[in-house]
Amino acid sequence: VLALDVVLADGRLLRTGHRSIKGVTGLDLTGLFVGSEGTLGVVVRATLRLRPAPVAVSTLVAVFPDVAAAAAGVAALASAPVQPSICELLGETAVASLRKRSPLEVLRAGDVLLLVQTDGYGADVEAQVVADVLAGLGGVVRVASDEAEAAELLELRRTWGLDPERRRLIGEDIAVPRSQLVRIVEAVRDIAARHGFSHSLAAHAGDGNLHPSFDVVGPDPRTEAELQEAALVAADELVAETLAAGGTITGEHGVGVLKRRWFTDDVGEDSAALQRSLKAVLDPHGILNPGKVY
Amino acid sequence: VLALDVVLADGRLLRTGHRSIKGVTGLDLTGLFVGSEGTLGVVVRATLRLRPAPVAVSTLVAVFPDVAAAAAGVAALASAPVQPSICELLGETAVASLRKRSPLEVLRAGDVLLLVQTDGYGADVEAQVVADVLAGLGGVVRVASDEAEAAELLELRRTWGLDPERRRLIGEDIAVPRSQLVRIVEAVRDIAARHGFSHSLAAHAGDGNLHPSFDVVGPDPRTEAELQEAALVAADELVAETLAAGGTITGEHGVGVLKRRWFTDDVGEDSAALQRSLKAVLDPHGILNPGKVY
Repeated sequence: VLALDVVLADGRLLRTGHRSIKGVTGLDLTGLFVGSEGTLGVVVRATLRLRPAPVAVSTLVAVFPDVAAAAAGVAALASAPVQPSICELLGETAVASLRKRSPLEVLRAGDVLLLVQTDGYGADVEAQVVADVLAGLGGVVRVASDEAEAAELLELRRTWGLDPERRRLIGEDIAVPRSQLVRIVEAVRDIAARHGFSHSLAAHAGDGNLHPSFDVVGPDPRTEAELQEAALVAADELVAETLAAGGTITGEHGVGVLKRRWFTDDVGEDSAALQRSLKAVLDPHGILNPGKVY
Repeated sequence: VLALDVVLADGRLLRTGHRSIKGVTGLDLTGLFVGSEGTLGVVVRATLRLRPAPVAVSTLVAVFPDVAAAAAGVAALASAPVQPSICELLGETAVASLRKRSPLEVLRAGDVLLLVQTDGYGADVEAQVVADVLAGLGGVVRVASDEAEAAELLELRRTWGLDPERRRLIGEDIAVPRSQLVRIVEAVRDIAARHGFSHSLAAHAGDGNLHPSFDVVGPDPRTEAELQEAALVAADELVAETLAAGGTITGEHGVGVLKRRWFTDDVGEDSAALQRSLKAVLDPHGILNPGKVY
């Protein structure tokens, strides 16, 4: 985001940023408004920097026996000389759900799936490096041989959550250092079991950003209110483990209303107070997206 | 920059950001402190995200008859399917100065030089696309055939300013949309001529970030004070042209003391007032790098 037009709380139109690719004149107000969830002003125009579409893309999946093995693959890619454009992980329940609908042989080779994409002039060579790294760690690798097969593999990621037998009570968006992936996945499993839930997991694993969910499969003796209350307690426990692992409560979707309860635990008292003070400068009467974040 | 430890004006230690690659919890305080030039707090620790060193690098130079032709090359690269890691421009006086010291044949083929580097698994292929684009626009292209030759070409960029006959009075750091490069280079030439100066130019052309300078070559009848005063007026005129071209007064080096005079012209009254209000929250007694930027 190079520049923004923002309507301020008093009705003035503020222009932030610059039209040049580089520019460091004054404070980065553009960055301050980006991700502020409407609490500082109303963005009415954004100037974006575009990148060229990749000249070539290579897609592969690698299947592992469990999350620990797949996470070791993610860690190995992080220290290998590669920069994948996509590195996604699907957990056991997601893979089991896909098996019911997809005939792809590779889904039968293990329970946890990594989907990796490389791009650029050396996409094929880089994908082969990725494949070698993951195969060396026990992954069963399938590199897409053409666009149709690549689309088939990408479709796994797009449709993993479409399981009609599974009802999601709460979906998370936590992010942790990549070294902590296994710890968090194990916490998800333990917490779900303790509360009588099933769970499911997709992760932007290359970024350490996880979307675990606590789910109900089939009938449950609890009332809806009891289920919702238990799901929130489960989420509290997962957030506590995430923060203990050096992570944060939202990797990409924001704080909104639900995550206000964990906001100060995450950023700390001093940061929360400072953020409220900065908001007070821009929104002294609290009229901008009231009730969100703070 | 993923995270910062910042000592605030009242002595508290603030932690911003997160250790995960992604994270959008609350306002981007890390971004607010980065580039604030010490006016909001004292950074005592920074957590940086590292990228892997490139597996391969390809280096080339293209020489053009004039800046307009070279800028057309930069524009063509911007819309070509390439993403160079370096795209630097050296103007006529810089190239003339290099010719005195370097035997490189390509420096005799034209007056304005582009230095381009690509990297990654497809670096060679991408460099050939760059070479074809620039040659198609009349550039005389030389692709380095080995690391020694690449080092020789990079050395041109590193040493362009080392001309003992040339004394720099003021060096600029303006940035403009890439479409405005020629306009600004022509303005530099006109302004220098009007004030009886020589000029020199290097630019991070791929980013639209220019480092023109107003120089004295040989004896000048003016006193040192008269020269400095004239250089500042020349800079005033260049900044006015930069802002009229949609640019900004500093692409990478910051406002500091010298550029305070143009700060409000660049960001506007509303933004300047807002930035002062935000600074007042963090530095109510004005003890942090006083006199800078604002």
